[in-house]
Amino acid sequence: MSDPAESVARAPLTIRMQERDNVAIVANHGGLPAGTVLPGGLVLRDKVPQGHKVALVDFARDDAVVRYGIPIGFAVEAIAAGSWVHERLLKMPDARGLDQLPIATVKPAPLPALEGYTFEGYRNANGSVGTRNILAITQTVQCVAGVTDFAVRRIKSELLPLYPHVDDVVALAHGYGCGVAIDAPDAVVPIRTLRNISLNPNFGGEVMVVSLGCEKLQPERLLPPGSFAIVDARQPEGEALDVVCLQDDAHVGFMSMVESILRQARVHLERLNARRRETVPASALVVGVQCGGSDAFSGVTANPAVGFCTDLLVRAGASVMFSETTEVRDGIDQLTARASTPAVAEAMIREMAWYDAYLQRGSADRSANTTPGNKKGGLSNIVEKAMGSIVKSGTAAITGVLAPGEKLQTRGLTYAATPASDFICGTLQLAAGMNLHVFTTGRGTPYGLAECPVIKVATRTDLARRWHDLMDVNAGKIADGTATIEETGWELFHLMLEVASGRKKTWAEHWKLHNALVLFNPAPVT
Amino acid sequence: MSDPAESVARAPLTIRMQERDNVAIVANHGGLPAGTVLPGGLVLRDKVPQGHKVALVDFARDDAVVRYGIPIGFAVEAIAAGSWVHERLLKMPDARGLDQLPIATVKPAPLPALEGYTFEGYRNANGSVGTRNILAITQTVQCVAGVTDFAVRRIKSELLPLYPHVDDVVALAHGYGCGVAIDAPDAVVPIRTLRNISLNPNFGGEVMVVSLGCEKLQPERLLPPGSFAIVDARQPEGEALDVVCLQDDAHVGFMSMVESILRQARVHLERLNARRRETVPASALVVGVQCGGSDAFSGVTANPAVGFCTDLLVRAGASVMFSETTEVRDGIDQLTARASTPAVAEAMIREMAWYDAYLQRGSADRSANTTPGNKKGGLSNIVEKAMGSIVKSGTAAITGVLAPGEKLQTRGLTYAATPASDFICGTLQLAAGMNLHVFTTGRGTPYGLAECPVIKVATRTDLARRWHDLMDVNAGKIADGTATIEETGWELFHLMLEVASGRKKTWAEHWKLHNALVLFNPAPVT
Repeated sequence: MSDPAESVARAPLTIRMQERDNVAIVANHGGLPAGTVLPGGLVLRDKVPQGHKVALVDFARDDAVVRYGIPIGFAVEAIAAGSWVHERLLKMPDARGLDQLPIATVKPAPLPALEGYTFEGYRNANGSVGTRNILAITQTVQCVAGVTDFAVRRIKSELLPLYPHVDDVVALAHGYGCGVAIDAPDAVVPIRTLRNISLNPNFGGEVMVVSLGCEKLQPERLLPPGSFAIVDARQPEGEALDVVCLQDDAHVGFMSMVESILRQARVHLERLNARRRETVPASALVVGVQCGGSDAFSGVTANPAVGFCTDLLVRAGASVMFSETTEVRDGIDQLTARASTPAVAEAMIREMAWYDAYLQRGSADRSANTTPGNKKGGLSNIVEKAMGSIVKSGTAAITGVLAPGEKLQTRGLTYAATPASDFICGTLQLAAGMNLHVFTTGRGTPYGLAECPVIKVATRTDLARRWHDLMDVNAGKIADGTATIEETGWELFHLMLEVASGRKKTWAEHWKLHNALVLFNPAPVT
Repeated sequence: MSDPAESVARAPLTIRMQERDNVAIVANHGGLPAGTVLPGGLVLRDKVPQGHKVALVDFARDDAVVRYGIPIGFAVEAIAAGSWVHERLLKMPDARGLDQLPIATVKPAPLPALEGYTFEGYRNANGSVGTRNILAITQTVQCVAGVTDFAVRRIKSELLPLYPHVDDVVALAHGYGCGVAIDAPDAVVPIRTLRNISLNPNFGGEVMVVSLGCEKLQPERLLPPGSFAIVDARQPEGEALDVVCLQDDAHVGFMSMVESILRQARVHLERLNARRRETVPASALVVGVQCGGSDAFSGVTANPAVGFCTDLLVRAGASVMFSETTEVRDGIDQLTARASTPAVAEAMIREMAWYDAYLQRGSADRSANTTPGNKKGGLSNIVEKAMGSIVKSGTAAITGVLAPGEKLQTRGLTYAATPASDFICGTLQLAAGMNLHVFTTGRGTPYGLAECPVIKVATRTDLARRWHDLMDVNAGKIADGTATIEETGWELFHLMLEVASGRKKTWAEHWKLHNALVLFNPAPVT
């Protein structure tokens, strides 16, 4: 089998995203040396690393450097054609103001319906569908994490083998629940996040809670009467929440607490074990898309392929969330223009404005987003990163907006406002009801979640080769010229249906690689 | 053996802390019914639960309700003697201003030296002493947590049995490292916290790091050259930090990453395994004291016993930290008065002012501290809670102040400013260099840390009886009248030396109950 990465290394290859771009990025693994003659005749004046930009024209000081058709920065000095345009040569544009934005101007034509695609999922009483059949143990507070872990180890070894139709038992541990300003205005975010994670479709409506007793986040506050009955029709309205309270007077000795948890777990395991997968339309998918460890290829290979797949999902009637506020902030005008209604556009502006103010309160701004790895990978600043990130959202009209931790109620394409932190974004998308996660990476991350399958897409063939048993899809083939964006998007779509059906495990599932739930708590701790 | 709790239940018993207090708390398990005649003749007008206050005099509206000798609130209506004084009858006093405080006025006489007490500890190259011999694996970012967990499971099963003098292997997982505003002013707190935890004396100066590669918190930023050499004299100044970088080009396939971690772990395990306990003076103890799940007995039994023990430790030349800013804020005047110098008092005021402003930024104040469990346990508000909490600090002069995440450099009694959240406080005390943790609880919590032994002290005999295999010391005997504060303080002191020496395990160690590290990050996430 010929090695596409090797063939790429032989011929100089640069990628320009749009006609009006005056820079292109170097696609070759290992970069290109000074003196390289590019197709068209331009000679490199510097060594340019892979993913980094080369000047296609002569720039005077203050000239706009254009990529993705927009100015990603202004030259701080003259730059000759053929030079390496690195981040120290660029002044970042100011953030676009949030007034006078185009509101629902694009009116994208409805995409043609995509019919006939199905997967095998677990139908829940409330109409949602799980891609996995997991017993989740909700915790009101970090205090109970040690005891719950102890109990979960016993459940896994003693009980789970008796219930072969249950995929896993997951303790929903977190750092919240006490020692926090629970009545501060912003405390609504972590509280609804925890509530909605408990109700994720992959948990089958079986809600069981381990509580300490004296914590601020009391079980009835976390899951008020009625909130949990919604997902479980077998639990009549008004039925008590299933809570194991460690401080209960009936508990004498540590093992009595553990036994209480095991006893209650058995009740839920019985019901989960009786469930079977059924054929459901692809519209039952609730997909969260995210990127982490981005490089200059993210916006060239993996994210466009995900964007194409996002359109397929929307056409199939499914739900897709894109997120990461600071990574789309610089494209706010594209997003408000694509909103299906003015109300949707206004909701996006509201979320962006909230985040601007949140960052400012901490003496930071959107430029705090980029990482050393982004820059090493060729992304000069957050504007360039955002242009590559936003592509994941495809081309459909944006029909919904969620504030952090809210639960998704609509189908189609939704902007779920979250921080860009991989683990916080994933946690909030779980709360929104995600049953399948797509994660693109250029630098490489072994990211995974215990609560939901994560399909990881590599932006470069080199990464996909080295991390062959961690990356599920190689979008680097697009840069190699061995696959198109459309082909890779379809490959991802088909893989999603396989993974959702449980016929295929992701690499993160294979190795049981799980990141922690990390809550977004904009309120103070006490 | 007679049951002290039962004997208490028979005779009505109330506890008044100071002569001028005009309320007392009910000590009897189960509380006392209306009509009960107290010693002295006062008749209860209401049923008063255990730990709750009874009015010893008639109060007019706005009269001060005095406990611990200070007004913990003002009556919102007339209250007759013998009534239950619950939190809804009290208006909380305003927070004491931070100007015009008494500065170093008390000048406590130096406590008499306590000589001859020793324990068996692990001497470190920098002079610090470990109470355990643990291989800690530092992580720069949450991204690597799944891979590190996988490797740690293998280290525990394959390697640890070969190194019998090593107590444990602990992955220092956390939610920080990327997706955060790492250059925001307040980011200094989580970064120095992680750095200083890596250098905790219980890890023997063996610093190994798992890094992703592209994260914001680069290994050299977390542990700059020289910072780690300080604790490990074998590591000459300038020697490279031991980092396993997952994105390293040499890693091909997941198992190659795991093998890299195992290979490096072996190097450190070899060195740790060569260490032996030596007899060291009690002055090598670095004790963090904390309370969690407090009730009205916390300030009557467990915390006074801890305070007595704090004095013993200071007399023995050891280091003791008390913390929990919002739980001592209302006693700031006592603390500044006890400062050894004006500079120490000013540092305390600076930390309190910082925290006041931090809470205010999130539309909260110190009153956000109290929990439903506190109130159920009889604590009406944060003023009353603080008076009971501050007692843990004993009577010695306060000679040091630490900002959150800073490393302790001095002996004696230090105010280590931290949030009151149990897990955050414990995490910050670990960063300060704590090698032994004392935790008092009234409501009961199964708190534990993987990094350091935690001795748990129950405030009530009923809790100590029910949680017999979770609580290490029963301070409830003080309320029962079967032990004095001094006796219980000495009992704790002797137990500390046993636990520090590894001759005795705490219950949290026995069951391997570990809470997560939870960082204090006052800066924004991105």
